[in-house]
Amino acid sequence: MRMDFNAREIEVNKQTMNVEQHAVATAVAEPAADCRRLVQVILAGGSGTRLWPVSREQYPKQLIGVVGDQSLLQATMKRMDGFAKAWDVAAEPVIVCGAEHSFATREQAQQCEVKPRIVVEPARRDTAPALTLAALAASTDGDDPILVAMPADHAIADIAALQAAIEQAAQLAQAEGVIATLGVPPTRADTGFGYIRLGAPLKNGAHQIDRFVEKPAAELAAEYVASGSYWWNSGMFVVRASVWLDALKRFQPEMHAACVEAHANAKRDDVYITPGVDEFERCPSDSIDYAVMEQLGKEGSPFTGVVVPLEAGWSDLGSWDAVWEAMDKDEFGNVANGRVMMEGATATYARSEGGRLVACVGTNGLVVVETDDAVLVADRSHVQNIKGLVSRIRQTKSPEAENHRKVRRPWGFYDSIDNGDRFQVKRIVVSPGARLSLQMHHHRAEHWIVVSGTALVTRGEEQFLLTENQSTFIPLGVRHRLENPGHVPLQIIEVQSGAYLGEDDIVRFDDQYGRCN
Amino acid sequence: MRMDFNAREIEVNKQTMNVEQHAVATAVAEPAADCRRLVQVILAGGSGTRLWPVSREQYPKQLIGVVGDQSLLQATMKRMDGFAKAWDVAAEPVIVCGAEHSFATREQAQQCEVKPRIVVEPARRDTAPALTLAALAASTDGDDPILVAMPADHAIADIAALQAAIEQAAQLAQAEGVIATLGVPPTRADTGFGYIRLGAPLKNGAHQIDRFVEKPAAELAAEYVASGSYWWNSGMFVVRASVWLDALKRFQPEMHAACVEAHANAKRDDVYITPGVDEFERCPSDSIDYAVMEQLGKEGSPFTGVVVPLEAGWSDLGSWDAVWEAMDKDEFGNVANGRVMMEGATATYARSEGGRLVACVGTNGLVVVETDDAVLVADRSHVQNIKGLVSRIRQTKSPEAENHRKVRRPWGFYDSIDNGDRFQVKRIVVSPGARLSLQMHHHRAEHWIVVSGTALVTRGEEQFLLTENQSTFIPLGVRHRLENPGHVPLQIIEVQSGAYLGEDDIVRFDDQYGRCN
Repeated sequence: MRMDFNAREIEVNKQTMNVEQHAVATAVAEPAADCRRLVQVILAGGSGTRLWPVSREQYPKQLIGVVGDQSLLQATMKRMDGFAKAWDVAAEPVIVCGAEHSFATREQAQQCEVKPRIVVEPARRDTAPALTLAALAASTDGDDPILVAMPADHAIADIAALQAAIEQAAQLAQAEGVIATLGVPPTRADTGFGYIRLGAPLKNGAHQIDRFVEKPAAELAAEYVASGSYWWNSGMFVVRASVWLDALKRFQPEMHAACVEAHANAKRDDVYITPGVDEFERCPSDSIDYAVMEQLGKEGSPFTGVVVPLEAGWSDLGSWDAVWEAMDKDEFGNVANGRVMMEGATATYARSEGGRLVACVGTNGLVVVETDDAVLVADRSHVQNIKGLVSRIRQTKSPEAENHRKVRRPWGFYDSIDNGDRFQVKRIVVSPGARLSLQMHHHRAEHWIVVSGTALVTRGEEQFLLTENQSTFIPLGVRHRLENPGHVPLQIIEVQSGAYLGEDDIVRFDDQYGRCN
Repeated sequence: MRMDFNAREIEVNKQTMNVEQHAVATAVAEPAADCRRLVQVILAGGSGTRLWPVSREQYPKQLIGVVGDQSLLQATMKRMDGFAKAWDVAAEPVIVCGAEHSFATREQAQQCEVKPRIVVEPARRDTAPALTLAALAASTDGDDPILVAMPADHAIADIAALQAAIEQAAQLAQAEGVIATLGVPPTRADTGFGYIRLGAPLKNGAHQIDRFVEKPAAELAAEYVASGSYWWNSGMFVVRASVWLDALKRFQPEMHAACVEAHANAKRDDVYITPGVDEFERCPSDSIDYAVMEQLGKEGSPFTGVVVPLEAGWSDLGSWDAVWEAMDKDEFGNVANGRVMMEGATATYARSEGGRLVACVGTNGLVVVETDDAVLVADRSHVQNIKGLVSRIRQTKSPEAENHRKVRRPWGFYDSIDNGDRFQVKRIVVSPGARLSLQMHHHRAEHWIVVSGTALVTRGEEQFLLTENQSTFIPLGVRHRLENPGHVPLQIIEVQSGAYLGEDDIVRFDDQYGRCN
């Protein structure tokens, strides 16, 4: 039964909304057969310095297994699996991410056998333009699906509860003019989240949105929670693509125009959509909340914001404190990840990422995170200062703000395991079938020793295979290429020798990942 | 003027000691010309788990630069430099250490151009037997010097004040029957030290010793400090060799006999004295305090214990808390060693030993110590639990209790920089003129790449030189030897390949350090 529900008719002053309107607003429970299509949109543009040193500029939080073996992005890609059969969930989610993360994003999707459409943002412009590019990508061929937009870097414990909330939101979003968000009834006076003030109640616990409020101070947060009329803003939105685009056009015409133009001039292949750089760079930067959601109640607005309750063990993992909160603890309130020993510790989160033994003795309320090249020790009540710390690290031009010691590349990764005066040692791992660029160095020679798998080596005019326990020498100035022709990862130890060993001493002649330009 | 002072005549009941006796007891200020010989004895037998992870079983605290660039042992070897000219300080200190530390001890002495006599303890038997072996070593050819015994692992800020205290103690020790110790007037109610209860006052602030008391509880420590009659026990002793041996013979005849026999059957070379193993293993284990000092006041004892005040910024560096106490702090009470960043931290000691960036955010009263293979985070008030932690690590057979990742050898060191399935990568540094044993492995092949210096390689029947940027391959089962014929350190990267890569897969054919037996 298709309802003649029209959000434009809803009284925009929610304070005066009565029970009758309530009935109208929630009467959209039965979606029409022709518009049950859902597209998952994953907003993966975050840079996530708050979980430093595990999260880095070049390999941020969503690409990392913060709370489990899978990365948060991978867990997010799986969140629509098994969704209610009444809905047609597109097999291809749309992921919006930055160029520097696009290879890793694709690789992680492949690992969990998801074939996404990846929209590569030419510049960082916050979530409203990101969702707009995704809406445009999902609307090709006249489709007008319901978008289920969610950040790539949150954790959700109860997927069934999440899906039920999404379904409820999708039913509301079927109605013209309705933009639904998922709000989390608060369990503590958290100052790390934005809050949504509830408007008139709708069916099944949903509410109209009165307004969005920014992260409050502690006292105000406590008032919010005590009042019962504020929910946490989860950053998840459910909206029909055309409704989103219409709302954006009304409230942010400049942003809308820039996105539409950038999309029109996008480069595309099987996986990637890369919107026009010049057009997108002209796009203003803003969040979904500010750019659209807060405008919905304006006089004359034909759009309605509604919030659906989400009680599914949601966490934005927005700080190490939040990570500790989200994890199972032992009887002393400790969380130990990796090679960790606790001796009289309480309420301590300790994580050994680089494999070293981490020992916590008599600590309380502490976060300890060890990686290959950095160790963070933070009082849990001061984790908000990590952002400032990372800025300071960046100012000193230390690499630890940007990269891990292990650096991901389209062909695999390398790890700088040792270095000294005039030498550097790397472990290089090349994925099956992948190959590095044909390259040459002006200042260094390289020794390669294969420790597992098979290498196809190009050295000057020669080409030859090397297998485990074989080695070769690449003199300075000689063109060379390393390739994995096999079906298992290739691992080599590379010993570089020379007066200058920077990553920028590289001349690329040919590269399958387009890095010659 | 040689005094006819005879300690045997001193009333042993110190409670009844009167002013006249006081005058007698301090009348030894002028040593006779023939007995002004001093020998420094350095007790370097500690295993020092309390400063884990910097201090390890195989490379303990005294071998490490805890508070400066020099190791504590090296700083200790320099403490008699510039001693008052009226005394003849032997150029060769006697160092007593365990066999596992004897190479490193010799190497560190060479680095600071000290030629010690090194007494290698065949077994750990605490300080009383150690001092006895040193007394015997210093008494050859009928010499009877005054021994100035000090632990190898303490810090002293004011060397002039130390030397003044030692001179005062040495003047007292000239008298027959007097054993002098240095006591530190306490500056806080520390529960980590033993205390000495002062007896009758002597000249220049010295006192007879009433008794030794063990580490007290906090309340008792406060009483001790408030009373003004207790000093910290510094573990430094000044005593004539013959007096020590006589006292030991009287109070611990079994220990005395075992040490004398072990010394009689010692192996000697230019540097090392290795007492007989079987004899020394029969020796009871005890400290100088318990075995002798606490017995001095016994009825009929001809010996007198005196304590001389030491106010020289002494610290036993007995815990990370003590290390923090001993070091200069910034305005927030922080101490940062190495690559450390503090963000809102207070009263925090942070040390980056392995070179990784260590960041402390909002921490208070914390110790953070990073090494190549382990990270310790401890509340400063719980550092005494580190000992228990290290025992637990040992129980799990993890290497981090015993060794550093960088393992010292007589010829230099190696550092295990990477490892994986069927491979391991080491950086090997060979000292100028040193060579590894002629050896062979059953389970692994090795690639060697020289990154600095020159290597003389023996491989099967061949011998050849390799210099920077050259490499060779040692197949499994082939005899080989690595040698540094040059004048600068040789550094190679070794890539091992094989199914078993344990250190025990080694057959030694020849070794200049006697490791073939």
